[in-house]
This record gives sequence, structure tokens and C-alpha cells, in this order.
Amino acid sequence: MANVSIVMGSDSDMPVMAQAAEVLEKLGVEFEMTVISAHREPDIFFEYAKTAEARGIKVIIAGAGKAAHLPGMCAALFPMPVIGIPMKTSDLGGVDSLYSIVQMPSGIPVATVAINGGTNAGILAAKILAAGDAKLLARLKDYSENLKNDVVKKAEKLDKIGYQEYLSQMK
Amino acid sequence: MANVSIVMGSDSDMPVMAQAAEVLEKLGVEFEMTVISAHREPDIFFEYAKTAEARGIKVIIAGAGKAAHLPGMCAALFPMPVIGIPMKTSDLGGVDSLYSIVQMPSGIPVATVAINGGTNAGILAAKILAAGDAKLLARLKDYSENLKNDVVKKAEKLDKIGYQEYLSQMK
Amino acid sequence: MANVSIVMGSDSDMPVMAQAAEVLEKLGVEFEMTVISAHREPDIFFEYAKTAEARGIKVIIAGAGKAAHLPGMCAALFPMPVIGIPMKTSDLGGVDSLYSIVQMPSGIPVATVAINGGTNAGILAAKILAAGDAKLLARLKDYSENLKNDVVKKAEKLDKIGYQEYLSQMK
Amino acid sequence: MANVSIVMGSDSDMPVMAQAAEVLEKLGVEFEMTVISAHREPDIFFEYAKTAEARGIKVIIAGAGKAAHLPGMCAALFPMPVIGIPMKTSDLGGVDSLYSIVQMPSGIPVATVAINGGTNAGILAAKILAAGDAKLLARLKDYSENLKNDVVKKAEKLDKIGYQEYLSQMK
Amino acid sequence: MANVSIVMGSDSDMPVMAQAAEVLEKLGVEFEMTVISAHREPDIFFEYAKTAEARGIKVIIAGAGKAAHLPGMCAALFPMPVIGIPMKTSDLGGVDSLYSIVQMPSGIPVATVAINGGTNAGILAAKILAAGDAKLLARLKDYSENLKNDVVKKAEKLDKIGYQEYLSQMK
Amino acid sequence: MANVSIVMGSDSDMPVMAQAAEVLEKLGVEFEMTVISAHREPDIFFEYAKTAEARGIKVIIAGAGKAAHLPGMCAALFPMPVIGIPMKTSDLGGVDSLYSIVQMPSGIPVATVAINGGTNAGILAAKILAAGDAKLLARLKDYSENLKNDVVKKAEKLDKIGYQEYLSQMK
Amino acid sequence: MANVSIVMGSDSDMPVMAQAAEVLEKLGVEFEMTVISAHREPDIFFEYAKTAEARGIKVIIAGAGKAAHLPGMCAALFPMPVIGIPMKTSDLGGVDSLYSIVQMPSGIPVATVAINGGTNAGILAAKILAAGDAKLLARLKDYSENLKNDVVKKAEKLDKIGYQEYLSQMK
Amino acid sequence: MANVSIVMGSDSDMPVMAQAAEVLEKLGVEFEMTVISAHREPDIFFEYAKTAEARGIKVIIAGAGKAAHLPGMCAALFPMPVIGIPMKTSDLGGVDSLYSIVQMPSGIPVATVAINGGTNAGILAAKILAAGDAKLLARLKDYSENLKNDVVKKAEKLDKIGYQEYLSQMK
Repeated sequence: MANVSIVMGSDSDMPVMAQAAEVLEKLGVEFEMTVISAHREPDIFFEYAKTAEARGIKVIIAGAGKAAHLPGMCAALFPMPVIGIPMKTSDLGGVDSLYSIVQMPSGIPVATVAINGGTNAGILAAKILAAGDAKLLARLKDYSENLKNDVVKKAEKLDKIGYQEYLSQMK
Repeated sequence: MANVSIVMGSDSDMPVMAQAAEVLEKLGVEFEMTVISAHREPDIFFEYAKTAEARGIKVIIAGAGKAAHLPGMCAALFPMPVIGIPMKTSDLGGVDSLYSIVQMPSGIPVATVAINGGTNAGILAAKILAAGDAKLLARLKDYSENLKNDVVKKAEKLDKIGYQEYLSQMK
Repeated sequence: MANVSIVMGSDSDMPVMAQAAEVLEKLGVEFEMTVISAHREPDIFFEYAKTAEARGIKVIIAGAGKAAHLPGMCAALFPMPVIGIPMKTSDLGGVDSLYSIVQMPSGIPVATVAINGGTNAGILAAKILAAGDAKLLARLKDYSENLKNDVVKKAEKLDKIGYQEYLSQMK
Repeated sequence: MANVSIVMGSDSDMPVMAQAAEVLEKLGVEFEMTVISAHREPDIFFEYAKTAEARGIKVIIAGAGKAAHLPGMCAALFPMPVIGIPMKTSDLGGVDSLYSIVQMPSGIPVATVAINGGTNAGILAAKILAAGDAKLLARLKDYSENLKNDVVKKAEKLDKIGYQEYLSQMK
Repeated sequence: MANVSIVMGSDSDMPVMAQAAEVLEKLGVEFEMTVISAHREPDIFFEYAKTAEARGIKVIIAGAGKAAHLPGMCAALFPMPVIGIPMKTSDLGGVDSLYSIVQMPSGIPVATVAINGGTNAGILAAKILAAGDAKLLARLKDYSENLKNDVVKKAEKLDKIGYQEYLSQMK
Repeated sequence: MANVSIVMGSDSDMPVMAQAAEVLEKLGVEFEMTVISAHREPDIFFEYAKTAEARGIKVIIAGAGKAAHLPGMCAALFPMPVIGIPMKTSDLGGVDSLYSIVQMPSGIPVATVAINGGTNAGILAAKILAAGDAKLLARLKDYSENLKNDVVKKAEKLDKIGYQEYLSQMK
Repeated sequence: MANVSIVMGSDSDMPVMAQAAEVLEKLGVEFEMTVISAHREPDIFFEYAKTAEARGIKVIIAGAGKAAHLPGMCAALFPMPVIGIPMKTSDLGGVDSLYSIVQMPSGIPVATVAINGGTNAGILAAKILAAGDAKLLARLKDYSENLKNDVVKKAEKLDKIGYQEYLSQMK
Repeated sequence: MANVSIVMGSDSDMPVMAQAAEVLEKLGVEFEMTVISAHREPDIFFEYAKTAEARGIKVIIAGAGKAAHLPGMCAALFPMPVIGIPMKTSDLGGVDSLYSIVQMPSGIPVATVAINGGTNAGILAAKILAAGDAKLLARLKDYSENLKNDVVKKAEKLDKIGYQEYLSQMK
């Protein structure tokens, strides 16, 4: 049964939202995923958000851009954590999405991650579930260990070949 | 019967929203006014916004601050014009409210006025109704004429007493 | 007879302004459209804006970029609603256009939509006219219904093919 | 046993951090609270963050201002959710704190709330724990119900006394 | 005969505009000064700006705040230099005024000075006239010499009494 | 003899500075032009700026990017008007250049034009000289007339071929 | 003999610059201090900056606000490190000062500290000298130890009296 | 023996960090260089930063992007100067990196250079060492002389071939 719901306001957000899905798969967390709009289909959205708890959802990850209301409206309707991903925008760089998501009024928090931070949203959802799931917590620690090893390998490579060769291999 | 609905997400927005009410009264436009929150009471809000048309409302004026979703959610539920007033905020000056209201996605416009622009929201509502109401249009023209006369009087005063005296009278 | 006037300060704004024209055509709203500059030909502009009411115009849609004065100057001369579209700019992303349009002083509102929000400007103009035109209101409701159906179809597609396949079809 | 740790980089952040403590007390969630600096006492901080899991901590709430590194460094050392509160700053309004907390690189999320959002940080911590605690979830739902009732009462008051009287009572 | 015209969109701009007047008086430059609004009385404004050249005006200094159109509209109607002063605003600090004045489209420059830069606008007007007036240029050089002497005196004072005493005398 | 000096801090600014040169040529204004750096060759720069008046220069146009000090340092050394052009920057869009040029302290104004506003800087220089040169003023009026005619032709074209055809010809 | 020079463009910067002086005194570093303006007295400034090396100065600390050119011009004339302090400004919060100081072009670095960061500028100057002065380095380590102890004491106090009492004592 | 340590949080920062390395090589300053992450491998990072002094490091150059904590955490652990390079970011242009690095709290300065300012970071490190190394100071003066000569040559070229030819050769 899915414990995480991934929702996006527009399918143009898919490349970022897919990062959340991918990391959840790696971490062995089941999720459901849909395109849903608080603005264009408010009734469908309302029904979806209000029934999420009954479906077993523990965390909602919501991505949206510009005047991004989807995460905040999820947080108004769903009683457990909502993670918001502000989408980068072509004109304002995503600062509009960020402010629309993070600056929630008192009483209705949205756990906001970085602009286009799909992977981090997935990891954060897993960390929330891991607060009550020791096996998932262990998998998260492995994931972090891998991040660390990737950096170590890069440092070793740089040490071995020097910055000029490293740079030329990046091109 | 009220044609304009004035709604605010928090009663701390009252000083700005009252400006809209005052100018509508001056212009002879009936309105209803309430405190309503898309975040804290989504069901009540939904019901209110969906029944507004049946109550005879032609324009909604919605004010909200920070991650301001009230105007956009009104626009998702009400088929006629929604005017949004971004509230000044103590940390970001209101640019968060402005972006959350004006940067609406395609299909769901909000007619946004200046930060804390309560009076202009009221005038804009009246202008919208005036497109189909010649008497109201005439009253709006009188209102504009008064604005003009105020400036003319200030210019005459400045011409008469000079800038130093004018300045000292302002203190 | 045209009820809506679409004006732009430069023909480089045409791709955005054409979006307004297209959605008005879809909604069956007649409009006139021109290139006119408050800065480069103030006399022609003045004459145009002052005679708009007599030509039957009920709403002006004005787009402009950078230090964008066209919408505000329309609002100074035309007594019914003026909708402003801030153009995206290559250096500041359009925040200059947005501030120049939305931050109007008390007494002279401009109904501002999102940066590059041509479609929303057209819809807002139609919503303004629909406050006094039941048939147009019905067409607007159909338009919204179509927006909703588009999202529903995307959700169904995602549900059917999964996010990985969905993503690969987007490329 | 405390499940939540509230940490702040400077005791000047106390007024905001105390909001988190207060709401956790209302919701019946035990917490520990300290002043700790990743910059001024990195060894003590490291030890604290690395032993938090063993002490039974499930969520860390970290507040910091300006170049705010405390929440991100907690997230580097603690495997479960870290909530970051950006402090308002006197020069940049808190946008510096916000960017320093929310824009975390891939792999190390911080669940960011609004600038000075102490109450929301506390609620979010409770929501995270509530994903595995039905009684806490019930208390959170009561809390939300109270928020709703507060708005309803304000709306009734406004309806009863009118906006002018309401406004004069606010002064 | 006045060669400089000082205009402001609102008499709330008077404290800043008076700085321009004061420095022009010190420099022996005659000026006229008025309150005039491109938005609230466009006909009067048009007439004023178009007849300025015939009255002998060589430079216009225009101050305005928020969506500040007065300087740009002066530049559209008056063929010689227009100096724009962006007013500080209570919400956005004046960045709205600045963008609305400085970001003029190609063909219609406004010589923009700092936010609230009334004194600098006056000096710039004098410098423009001094390009063709050797006596005024000499007075400007004296003015600059005085600025220099003021700094020299402060340095001497600091050298004499030390920073702690200097600081305590400032309080 | 050249009355205008065009200086730039780096030859990467040439495309923008050349616009100033071009419009001055069109308007029949002689100018000198050089690459000069207040940062990299302060002695040469000092000498250049201090001798400009003796060479007959009446206006300096200075372009610079990022922490742009060239225009302000020219204004510190040269007694007549200095026009500053803020260069667009790849990271901050030019807002760094703009603030570094326009926010000059009291006593030392720089007449700032739009980001990358080379043409406007040239026109402004000509307007400054035209305050004392009737023939140049006449040429400037012709230039403005041409700007106006360009807009009129575009409006006629749009009226004739319609927006869809106009748009397709732009591609 | 003084190794550090503290300069400011205006004596209104004294409260911030005095912080640098105070911390240098605590750390036993001799300094000279003056008010000097690159804009108002460029000749005096030039002479001062060019002779600093011969006077034994190893580091210059320069504070300035708005279009802050003093640190960058010091860096153009003085061959060793220049530390820049951006002053908070009343309109833009100091982001103008920050950009004017930190965004220096390639070849001429300014070591920039936080807005109003007088203390940090003093510490940084000491750290630069400490790279070649073991005794000063030891004093810097003591200073850091004191910072750490201050935090430890605050944590102990909070632990002892609880957050509510702590908060009430702050008022 | 290396006196300078160049560290970066991600190898995507290599093109900028390599500029620092290149200029240090030109100036004859030895350095070590590695990829190291305060977020992904805090233990390794801690060990590295705490042992730097014992290895003979006098200056650390740290580059990082987004919520950039690496420079500040280096400054918390290393007692001599830390130079921070804010990386340009694709969404916010690097203003997030800049604020995260420059706005350090009192007691822990980071010497911040421009966004992507790799070359300037290298020069600044050399200037710091040159405060105690006369030969290095001489090489730095030669470097500055070369910068000056480059500008002089460009000015001569422009003078010789004219701006139109200069511009066409740039394309």
C-alpha cells in the first residue's frame, strides 16, 4: 500500500517530480502519483486530498510553479506532512514558486525543499516515514553512505589526475 | 442586493480591506464582506465561493498576505472577475503576497492591484460593474474629477505659499 | 462592434498579445488590436485612449515591458477596466515590468496579470464582460470545463502508462 | 522521553523558537531545547547532532538567521527529518536566512517553513510524529478545528458589528 | 527666467523634492515647481509638459513613487533632459519606483538618480546647465570644494578626539 | 572637437557602448571613445578624467558592469554631467551594475539609464548638449519624429494584415 | 606601528566601523582610522591609498554604503588585502552596498563581509595578519574560545530556567 | 609545502575553482586542492579542516553553491582566513550562494568574492600571503601591471581601428 502521494499541478513538472519517484523507488517506499490541479479542477482536488488519509497516505509531496497553491491547499485538507517543491520559472527563476509555498500562514505548514528539489522531496518523505520504520531508516543511512563515497571517489580522482586533466575530462 | 464580495484571509487585513469598502460606499456600490480562510476552513470557503454567483455576486475582492492563496482559489471556484490585494508583510515587504497572487497559471486569472491597494481594488470592482452600468460610470467619472481637483488645489497652494512654507505645514 | 481593445507598446510584444487575441476569438468576443506607444507618440496615444469609450470599448488590455507605462496611462484616460500584461525582460525577468504596472497609485487601478500572461488577460477581459452577458458567461464555464478535462486526461494517461513512460514521451 | 529537539544558533532567536515549544506543549509532544552553534562550537554541535538519534530524537527543529547553516548541518549529521526556521533579519528581511536553509543540495533536505515560522515548525514536527501516532493525529485535528472556529467567530463578529466598528475596535 | 522645472506626482514627495530646490537656490539656478499628476490629470499634465520648452525650461526634474510614470511621460513630451527621482516606498523600499523610472525603452531616456536623491537631482540639473554656463560651472566647483572640506574636517576631528569620543558625540 | 567622451571599463562592453556612438553619429555629435579602467589603471584613468574638461568634453558616457565604479569615479573627477550605463550581467541580470551606478551618495550624481541602454545614453548626451544648441535640438526632434513614424507604420501593418499574419512574419 | 587602516566614506558609518576598531583593540592589533571619500576628495583619497604600503599598512578595512566605491578603489591602489563592509541602507537594506563591493571584476578582489559586519571585518584583518604572527593567532584562538563559552553558558542557563523564564528575562 | 587549500563542495564547481588554481600557479603560490562536502561527509570534512593548520595551510579557498555552507564551516574550524566563492546557480543566479556565504554571524568571517569569482579568490589568497612575503608582493605588482597593460593595448587598438571595426572583430 502506498504511503506517499506525489502530486503535481501540471505535467510540465514531471521531470522534477520523477526525481522524487525515483529516489522513493530506490529506498523501497511505495507511492501513488497523479496530475491534479487545485485551480482547474477544485472539486476533484478536494476529494482527492480529503480521502488521502483513508487510502493510507502518510505524506504528500506536491510540486507546483508560479503562484503555487497546490502544496498549501493540500496542507489545508490533509492532516499529516505535506512537502512542497517550488518549480523553477522561466521569468523569475522560481522565487515566485518558493514564496508561494514556503510563506504559509500560521497553522498550516508546508515542508518546503529547494527550487526543483525533486530528489530532496523524495528523501524527506522517506525520512518522515523512517521516524517510525527502522528498516527504512537503515536504507536511508546506506543511501547517505553512497553519497559520501561518491565524493570520496571524486576527491581521489582529482588527487590522482590533477585539476587540469579533471577539467578537460568534464568537457 | 450586493454585487461585490469583499473577503479577507485574516482580520489583520481589515485596515486595507476597509479601504475597498469605503470607496465602494462612496460610489454607491453594495457589497458583502467577510473573513474567510481557504487554509483554515476549506469547506466553508468552498461553499462560500461556489454559491457566490447564485447570491448575485459579480466581482470578488480578495485580500491575503504571505503565501496568499485566497484570491487564486476564489478564481478557481467563481466564474466572474476576482480582484486580488497583496498584503504588505513585515519581512519581505509584500513581494511574497504579490507573487502568490499575480503569477497565476494560464486559465485562472486574478486581477491584481498594488500591495495594500485596498482603495484601488474597490475602484476596479466599480469599473468592472460600470462596463454595464452607465450611472455608476458617471459616478466614477465624478470620482476621477475629484482626484484631479485635489491635485490642482495642491499645485495652487504650492504656487501661492512656496515650497518652504508648504513643507513646514506638512510637519 | 469590438468591446475589447488590445494594445501593445512594441510589436516585439506580439507573441504574448496574440495569446489574448486567440482566447477572445475562442470565447466569441470581438476586439480591436493595435501597436501604440505612450512614449513615442503621446498625442496619437492620448487621442486613441480618450476616444475608446465612444468607440464602444469596455475593456482595454495593454501589454508593455521594462518601465511599462502604457497600461497605467490607459487607466488614466479610459474610465472602465484596464488589464495590464507585464512583459518578460531579458535582464530582470520582467520584475521591472511587473512593478511598473501593478504598483499604481491610489485612484488609478490596473488589473495586472502574470508576467507574459496573455491568455489570462484575454480570459479576464471576457470575465469582466461576462458580468453583464449570460451567454458569454456560459462559454467561459465551458472553457473552464475543458481546462479541467485536459488535466483529467493527463492524470488518466499517467495512471495508465506510469511516470517513466510519461517522461520519455515528453522528450 | 523527548522525540523533538529544538535548537537555535543564538538566543536572540528565542522569541521565534519559543513558539515552536508552545505549540508542541499544547499538542502534548515532549521536546528538548538548547542553544547550540555550528559556527562557534563545532565540536559540541557535532557531538550533539550525532547522538540525537540515540537519545530518541525523531525530529530536529533548527532555527538560524543570516548565513544560516545550523539546519543544514543538522541534516548532514542526523538521519531523520530536520525542520529549518529562517529568522527575519534587520537588513535583508530574512531572505538571506531563507535561501541559506531551503536551497540545500541534492541528498540533504531541510524541511523549511516560513520566515519566523516558529509555530508552523512545531506543528510540522507534530505532523511528522503523527504519521505513526494516532492519538497525536487526533489532537492535531482538534487543533485545526480550533483554527477554523477562530475564523468563524471573526466572520460572525464582522457580520454583526460591521467593518467600521470592527476596525475601530482593532485600534 | 526659470530654466529648471521641478515636478512631483504627489505632495507627499515634497521633502525629497525640496532638496532639489534648495541646492538649486544655493547654486543660483532659477526654477519653477509644481505638483502635477500624469495619472490624475493627464490633460493638465500634457499641456504643462508640452509648453515647458516655450517657457524657457531646459531641464525637468520629476519625482514619483511606486509605478512611477511621471518622469517617463515628461521625457515623452519634452525634448531636453528629464531627471527622474525614484521615491522610497514603504513596502518595496523604492525598487518599484527605480525600475519604473530607469528602465525606459530605447529612444526616451530618463536621467535617473538614487532613490530619494533630491539633492543629486538638483546638482545634476545644474551640471547640465553648466555645460553652457561658465559661471554656474564655477559655482558647482565651489560646491564640490565645500563637500571636500566637510570630509577633511571630519577626518581631522576623528584624528583629534579618537573614534570612541567621536561615536559618543554622535548619540 | 569632441564634446562627448564615451568610456567603458572593458571591451566586452563594446556592443552596448557602440549603440551610444551610433546614435551620436546619427545626431551629428562628435565624440571620443576609449577603453579605460578605474580599477586596473587608476593613474591613467585619473589623468584622463581630470583633463577631459580641458579637452572640451561637456558630457561623459561611462559604461561598466558588476561592481561598476567607472561612472561614479568619473563623476568624482569631472565637473559636468556623467551618464552611466549599467551592463547586463550573466548572474544577476545587471541589478548589481544598476545599484553600483545609480545609488550614488549625495553630492556626486550619475545620470543613470536602463541596463544595456547604450542608445538612450547617446540620446541623453545629445539632449544635454541640445539645451544650448538649437540645431542639435531640431535634429533630436526629427529623431523623435522618426520613432513615432516607425510605430505608426507597425500599427498600419497590423491593421492591414491582422495579428496572425503579423506574428507569422516575425518568425 | 599600525598594520591595519580603517577607512569610511562618511562618518555616519562610524557605529559599524567602531566595531572593527574595538575588536582589533581586544586582539592587540594597532590600527589607524580616518574618514575619507573617493567621491568627494579623490585626490586626497588617491594619495592616502597609494602611500598606505609605505606607512606599513598590511590590510585596509573600508566601509561604505549605497553605490559603495571606496573598498574597490582601495583595492585598485593598494597591493595587499582590502576588506569591504557593506553598510545597511534605509531603502534597499544594504543589498546595493553589498553588490557594489562584492561583485568586483576579475583582477581586483575585495574581501567582503556581511552587511554592517564591522566586528567580522576586524577579526578577518587579524586573521590575515595572524597568517604570519603566531602570537596573534593564539589570541584569535582565545577569542574563539570565548565565543564558544558564551554559547555554552546560554545553553546551561536555558537548561536551568526553561524557555519561558529565559524569554521573560529577555524582555 | 602548500600554504593554500582549495576546496569545493561538488566537482561541478571545478571550472570556477580551476581559475583560482591557475592564478596561484602564475603567482608561484603552492596549493592543495580537493573535493570535500560538509553535508555529505561531515566527518571527513571536519578532520580535513581541523588538520589544515598543522599541514601548513595559511588560507583556505572554499567554493560552494545554493545553500552554501562549506566556506562558513571551514571558518568555524580553521583559525586563519577563509575565502568564499559563491557559485552561480541556474535558478537564482547565485544570490542564494552569495547570501549563504557572505552573511556570516559575528565572530566567524568569510572573505567573500564575487559570484563565480575564482580568479579573484586566488589573487586574494596571494595578497593575504603577500602581507608577509615581499617576493610574492612583487609578483602581485607585476600581475597588476599586466592587467593595466592589457587595458592600454585595447585602448590603443580602439583608437587605431575605430569602434565599428573593433566591434566587427569581436564577432
